Amino acid sequence: MIIVKVGGGKDINWDYIAQDTAALKEPVVIVHGANEVFTEISEKFGKAERMIVSPSGHVSRYTDLETMNLLTMVYSGLMNKKIVACLQKYGVNAVGLTGADGKLWLGKRKKAILAKDGAKTKLVTDSLTGKVESVNTRLINVLLEGGFTPVITIPAITTSGELINVDNDRALAVMARDLQVKTLVILFEAPGLMEKLDDPSSKISHINKGELKKFLDNFEGRIKKKLLGVSEATNAGVTNIYFGDGRIINPISSALKGKGTTIN
Amino acid sequence: MIIVKVGGGKDINWDYIAQDTAALKEPVVIVHGANEVFTEISEKFGKAERMIVSPSGHVSRYTDLETMNLLTMVYSGLMNKKIVACLQKYGVNAVGLTGADGKLWLGKRKKAILAKDGAKTKLVTDSLTGKVESVNTRLINVLLEGGFTPVITIPAITTSGELINVDNDRALAVMARDLQVKTLVILFEAPGLMEKLDDPSSKISHINKGELKKFLDNFEGRIKKKLLGVSEATNAGVTNIYFGDGRIINPISSALKGKGTTIN
Repeated sequence: MIIVKVGGGKDINWDYIAQDTAALKEPVVIVHGANEVFTEISEKFGKAERMIVSPSGHVSRYTDLETMNLLTMVYSGLMNKKIVACLQKYGVNAVGLTGADGKLWLGKRKKAILAKDGAKTKLVTDSLTGKVESVNTRLINVLLEGGFTPVITIPAITTSGELINVDNDRALAVMARDLQVKTLVILFEAPGLMEKLDDPSSKISHINKGELKKFLDNFEGRIKKKLLGVSEATNAGVTNIYFGDGRIINPISSALKGKGTTIN
Repeated sequence: MIIVKVGGGKDINWDYIAQDTAALKEPVVIVHGANEVFTEISEKFGKAERMIVSPSGHVSRYTDLETMNLLTMVYSGLMNKKIVACLQKYGVNAVGLTGADGKLWLGKRKKAILAKDGAKTKLVTDSLTGKVESVNTRLINVLLEGGFTPVITIPAITTSGELINVDNDRALAVMARDLQVKTLVILFEAPGLMEKLDDPSSKISHINKGELKKFLDNFEGRIKKKLLGVSEATNAGVTNIYFGDGRIINPISSALKGKGTTIN
């Protein structure tokens, strides 16, 4: 089994991903984002995005109830079902799920988050964010055994039945741990990880798993978060991680052939 | 196995439905609408609802691509996941699905729809609407056997992977047929079917299955559509249909005890 995580950029080519998924021999679990569509829809709704920056510089989305509703609409409604329809078009019998379905991604809500507010630090208590702690592998296994391909996105759920926003990339690490998956493919809008942002000629072909920590400090923002997830995944037993370009034909098999950035 | 269809009104009490579902001995499949929330969100989006009236007086939603996207956001995103979370809160291991997931509701898109336009009749060709023709019972059975409760809503999907809007009530009849379900519970915002609209004292306690046709002509709009679905369901082998109040405590078990309108 491999997990394929696909980023939420608008240039991701889902037709190519679906074709490639249909050709794979192994069972696949797909996890996806929807970031750029979310921004677009939020603007149409007249809802500005607000971010929380922790004292250590970690950036997360400020998720009040209205934002949570919008996230659920865009991630688990619009995008998840478009992706399912696209996979079905190519013969992949996809089933779209969120972390709430079958308590797939069970997590805890953060009661309070420290946030930088200019020079001060304040406490945010109404953000519906949290962290995935365990994965209901049974639902995934039941679906895979039935020949279905699970396609998963946020929100996650708490034991008390509250929908929470979680970081997809870090949920991935918990999924890999609980499903005992050894191989992760991460598709985004770049040919691979790059030394210099936006300079494809600086693409890194290989990173030694043991040297991930060193690389973490070279990156910022979304890529840093992805690498944090990756680092947690390797700690959880993942042996091979392939970053690849989600815009090209055969994106998964190309990444598996090492055409992007391989971490092992 | 029973199928419980819940309407999309805002006074439907999902906590009561979830409590009652948790107490049921039989496996349940839930189908839900989201009509009132949809209207509310459409207005926030500045998108006016448009209806198509067929020459025979059948009213359906004009579903251009933007409306389809909104429907998917509200029905399969916002509402479906809120319902799943609510059921989980009461210990029901719900899994939210659309008709697109696992090709659950496989249908055909109507290429053209005749629509009344004042005194004239015109042809609408860009409405993403259709009709469910078959149900992938395997996905439902796999989930039920695994101890999960499927919670299903629109959209449906075509064989070419196109998302289509379908009538929930009539999809219900196809589900009942293909799952060989004998019992349907239909919860809405009324104590039962009524002779006079909005007059609870005119509640009809029992309708003889054979006399459904006669009743059809007494009703209009949404209720007529529900009864059309019911009529198709009885033709498909359903023997007992219970209309009940979705706003009261123990809504399903009360309906099953005949406190609403029983058709058999």
